Amino acid sequence: MSITTPKGFRAAGVAAGLKQSGNLDFAVIVNDGPIPATAAVFTSNRAKANPILWSERAIKAMPTKAIVLNSGGANCFTGEEGYSNTEATAKALADALHTAPETVLVCSTGLIGEQLDRSKLLNGVEKAVAELSAEAGDNPALAIMTTDTKPKQSRVRGEGWTIAGMAKGAGMLAPGLATMLVVITTDAIIDTDDLQEALNEAVRVSFNRLDSDGCMSTNDQVTVMASGASDIAPKISDFTAALTALCQDLATQLQADAEGASHQIDIEVTGAVTESDAEDVGRSVARNNLFKTAIFGNDPNWGRVLAAIGTTAAEFDPYQVSVSMNGVRVCHKGAPDRPREEVDLSPRETHVLIELGAGDATATIKTNDLTHDYVHENSAYSS
Amino acid sequence: MSITTPKGFRAAGVAAGLKQSGNLDFAVIVNDGPIPATAAVFTSNRAKANPILWSERAIKAMPTKAIVLNSGGANCFTGEEGYSNTEATAKALADALHTAPETVLVCSTGLIGEQLDRSKLLNGVEKAVAELSAEAGDNPALAIMTTDTKPKQSRVRGEGWTIAGMAKGAGMLAPGLATMLVVITTDAIIDTDDLQEALNEAVRVSFNRLDSDGCMSTNDQVTVMASGASDIAPKISDFTAALTALCQDLATQLQADAEGASHQIDIEVTGAVTESDAEDVGRSVARNNLFKTAIFGNDPNWGRVLAAIGTTAAEFDPYQVSVSMNGVRVCHKGAPDRPREEVDLSPRETHVLIELGAGDATATIKTNDLTHDYVHENSAYSS
Repeated sequence: MSITTPKGFRAAGVAAGLKQSGNLDFAVIVNDGPIPATAAVFTSNRAKANPILWSERAIKAMPTKAIVLNSGGANCFTGEEGYSNTEATAKALADALHTAPETVLVCSTGLIGEQLDRSKLLNGVEKAVAELSAEAGDNPALAIMTTDTKPKQSRVRGEGWTIAGMAKGAGMLAPGLATMLVVITTDAIIDTDDLQEALNEAVRVSFNRLDSDGCMSTNDQVTVMASGASDIAPKISDFTAALTALCQDLATQLQADAEGASHQIDIEVTGAVTESDAEDVGRSVARNNLFKTAIFGNDPNWGRVLAAIGTTAAEFDPYQVSVSMNGVRVCHKGAPDRPREEVDLSPRETHVLIELGAGDATATIKTNDLTHDYVHENSAYSS
Repeated sequence: MSITTPKGFRAAGVAAGLKQSGNLDFAVIVNDGPIPATAAVFTSNRAKANPILWSERAIKAMPTKAIVLNSGGANCFTGEEGYSNTEATAKALADALHTAPETVLVCSTGLIGEQLDRSKLLNGVEKAVAELSAEAGDNPALAIMTTDTKPKQSRVRGEGWTIAGMAKGAGMLAPGLATMLVVITTDAIIDTDDLQEALNEAVRVSFNRLDSDGCMSTNDQVTVMASGASDIAPKISDFTAALTALCQDLATQLQADAEGASHQIDIEVTGAVTESDAEDVGRSVARNNLFKTAIFGNDPNWGRVLAAIGTTAAEFDPYQVSVSMNGVRVCHKGAPDRPREEVDLSPRETHVLIELGAGDATATIKTNDLTHDYVHENSAYSS
């Protein structure tokens, strides 16, 4: 399984010297077509990194040919010098591929507010271009890791076509907030508008439902590139379903590797009037530090769940809400139900069910607990 | 200094047996007039505790004569039995004072979802009534403490009149979210509408600007009772200024005693288009776990400040923003300025200045860092 599993792509992951460790830190993926299409979603944070500013413009200006990604620095809030480093990287790769700079998207991840070394970026382009291969293996996925403990890849097969993806990040949170990068490739034939629509839908119910610590990145980018090399144009509904499954798998891998986490918590909200209400309710719990520390302490403190959801504008009556933890209903219609001692929170995988009793809509937010290791990793060094 | 420093009040703090430790856990404050007036603000959390539900109704139904407060249990999400325990407490105190139950406000603090023992509540009323005194000393302030390490009291003197206040809570956060209670007394002559208006203004720029961990309580209540016993009716603007100073002093005491905190952080936002924008920007930083852990680690990671404020809807250009920490401007107009090594974050009192460069409005949000002790206190036991 690799980002080059779908036909029509070449990729490479190399060490450009941006990481002090000498580890892989620079990846390039090239779409060789024959019927290329690209779609992307970007962070909604108004504080956008230079590679986001570049990529948002580039994808509108020209059809995308390639994407270049670096770890070892976010290139965010680095002023004009930072922007010109991004532009120079795109231009160097474009020159090597005999195309225009605007056909190259750029992603960066690492510490905010530090300049990247331009000569190392250009060195990365040269090394990666020399190693471009249709059998790139794990190197591209390894090259975008920061505090990730393992590379994250996924693949879904359709009828004669394939989607593959790679991701980095430890939930929405990652050191320095320079965080979630995802690249997806497919050899299906699909036009750009359909690809964007499929991506929007897939992201909505996967990455956008992952909320490890409520901290939104300046560098988030999810890009999907289609080559058409399978010679097959799947039904859009089939393609969207496959893309959604792939994104959900990558989101779960991100949740599993979230910094310092000792629990993966799925907060399932049912009985909401709208899906957006269900999401808001789940997110309010996912972002509540008292709930998150309680789960770390294996304490089924359901009062903290109710106190969190009471701060939302979602339509429900707090005194009609029931809460279950790992299958034990500890609160029924706003009053104590089963004894909290019956709840076993020792497994890493944790399920919290919130029944609002107000409608038929549901959503599940994926989050993590708040642990000593989280505090340690995010306080002990600048990242 | 005590809650009975202003003339016209009697109070007591006793041990009703609600706290397993046997410590003081039950307080009563009686307003003996001659010209009584009361105003209160309640949590905006829609998940409201039974004492909040009772007090909101009672203060509308009849002029308030007394307030009764207990620690050792929040009486929140405890169903009809919980509500009738609150009502029975008010009725018992009202009977002893020969008045109606609706003239008694009730506050509770402690774990959510556990029943209070009614016989202990009634025992508390009996003991407290027997000890009511115009020289109550620290006992009422001690009786409302939970994980507070010290009682919090304040006093402001006007021309012939006085305001005194007591508070409990560890920032907006406290164990079990059953948290910030404040009672304020004054012997000034002031009518109810003016008192409510003065309280709203004072709370807006004091307690509502304290945001230790973004977790809103189900039990928050701030009550001010005027007796008129000084025989002086101050100018409303003088009274409001004095009340505001008192509330800000209590808010700072709460911030100083926040659970597990190693830094008191004042986030000052200037150059906003509106005061509400300034507040939103400050609050987004105060609630950002990555910022809070960085401060714990004495790391002036200003990128996390910019990433946080980029998620707000406030009117400003992220690339015009400057950030200073403890007097060192580390970011100027969205680019690196002074080296971060120049910032000394070792003092407990920390000042973060965010200059938005968009207008003339300002606000300061008071918060704390996110520490190992915070995680420990909120995970190691149910509270």
